[in-house]
Amino acid sequence: MRMGAVVVERITVVGVGLIGGSLALALKQAGAVREVTGWDQNREHLHCAHALGIVDNIGADIGSAVADADIVILALPVRCLAQVAEQVLPSMRPDAILTDTGSVKEAVVAGIEPVAGNVGIAYVPGHPISGTEKSGPQAAFAELYRGKRCIITPTSSTPAAAIETVAQLWRCAGSEVVLMDVRKHDRILAAISHLPHMIAYALVNSVSNYDEYEENILEYSAGGFLDFTRIASSDPVMWRDIAMENRGAILEMLEQFETYLAELKADIAALDGKRLEGFFRQSKLSRDAIAGSAPTCTKGD
Amino acid sequence: MRMGAVVVERITVVGVGLIGGSLALALKQAGAVREVTGWDQNREHLHCAHALGIVDNIGADIGSAVADADIVILALPVRCLAQVAEQVLPSMRPDAILTDTGSVKEAVVAGIEPVAGNVGIAYVPGHPISGTEKSGPQAAFAELYRGKRCIITPTSSTPAAAIETVAQLWRCAGSEVVLMDVRKHDRILAAISHLPHMIAYALVNSVSNYDEYEENILEYSAGGFLDFTRIASSDPVMWRDIAMENRGAILEMLEQFETYLAELKADIAALDGKRLEGFFRQSKLSRDAIAGSAPTCTKGD
Repeated sequence: MRMGAVVVERITVVGVGLIGGSLALALKQAGAVREVTGWDQNREHLHCAHALGIVDNIGADIGSAVADADIVILALPVRCLAQVAEQVLPSMRPDAILTDTGSVKEAVVAGIEPVAGNVGIAYVPGHPISGTEKSGPQAAFAELYRGKRCIITPTSSTPAAAIETVAQLWRCAGSEVVLMDVRKHDRILAAISHLPHMIAYALVNSVSNYDEYEENILEYSAGGFLDFTRIASSDPVMWRDIAMENRGAILEMLEQFETYLAELKADIAALDGKRLEGFFRQSKLSRDAIAGSAPTCTKGD
Repeated sequence: MRMGAVVVERITVVGVGLIGGSLALALKQAGAVREVTGWDQNREHLHCAHALGIVDNIGADIGSAVADADIVILALPVRCLAQVAEQVLPSMRPDAILTDTGSVKEAVVAGIEPVAGNVGIAYVPGHPISGTEKSGPQAAFAELYRGKRCIITPTSSTPAAAIETVAQLWRCAGSEVVLMDVRKHDRILAAISHLPHMIAYALVNSVSNYDEYEENILEYSAGGFLDFTRIASSDPVMWRDIAMENRGAILEMLEQFETYLAELKADIAALDGKRLEGFFRQSKLSRDAIAGSAPTCTKGD
């Protein structure tokens, strides 16, 4: 996609925070869209996004905000996606495309696809693997998606042309687009993102509640602990929602993790130096192989 | 301690890698010692440390390297400490002090203290909470210990004057010295350092061995996973030794962690949003409270 090639005339971004706002900025900068309309339940965010030039105009209500769009992008917390989709679909043009940025896909697709099907509108489930620890329109920037992956999880009923249009948008924003089965997406994300978050939250609670000594032992933490637990500072509401929406895959990954932890524990208890060294060496090999393969980000990716 | 005030005339550093080399450089820069002798089983490291000016001279053998020292500092892997202490103690001056930098203390003290007691030499167990992911004399730098904590874990038989002399050295190197019970040290370190390392190693093995799909799902990892698992790139031999030397405390912390993980798992299985949000919020509060309280380091701290 050459810079400046228009993909669609008008898009509407519902949810003008870091994720939606950054996509709007990237697409405008790339010349991929002519006009961006914004909508947000948070009126302050909406007016801020307008003032910052993230969106060109704002709708009077959510229905009119989406009425003229070629593509409507729902950049909202996973728990709101299906409900907001139900709100916007009746107001959309029949030839328009609905897409989203949710970090869990099986539950979201199950919620949105039948409703979109009822009104004959193409729905393309998407998930950009990027973010920062910040949120809101002030945090948005055009480069957020550059060099990152965006996963699209079409089903058998997703029209190929709609997939290609949404993929083009993400490529214009600088991302590499990967098509993936929706179930696989949720398991991969559970493994590389949701599981680490669950572990980090449990670790911090475990250590901070260690009360053999009358002081907060977290005060002794050095850089290793701080790096390791940074993701435990993530938004509790967002992670509550992800944990609930991707329950099956997360429980599966937690059980797999527990198996490995039990193996390690048994080797420590048995003072089996050979197995311990092998366990650590295998882990180091796997970790070193991905070192530096992606820049830092901490959103629900 | 003013800059330039000499604490002792001569020290000998056994093990001239990152930890021992950096301490030598810091003490020379601060004018806290007049002469540094070095020893290392690795002759290449030893000559490198000499060439870099980390040590002023090198011993012909380990016995003569320590013979004239006021303080002998063992900066070696935890598993070697007791054995090397047995080697050096007979050659040391009776009024000299032996100290070490091992990141596990109960097992090390149990190994060294009786031997030091037999020859009437004061032994001061120490552990500087700092390091980098690098190693060897080339990685040593004088600022490593600045603004960091050094924990000294004396027993009832450690002479107060010897504790104060070793504490002064660490203060000259820029550290804050904390005196702590040896058992407490090992439990705190198990909680804030050893447990996170065990978890990171188990997580990477767990995720990299997830084989439902015919590809390495680690390739999808974004920054959050990379930050979280950086410590799984640590030295397998060093961590094998720490896991074995601090077995009791690490197993205790692993069990406490498993309890919290089980609670979280039950809340996810029950789709208990209120408890999940509370769990994540409590963790975020604890983690945010220590944010930025210490700079990055990744050694066995």
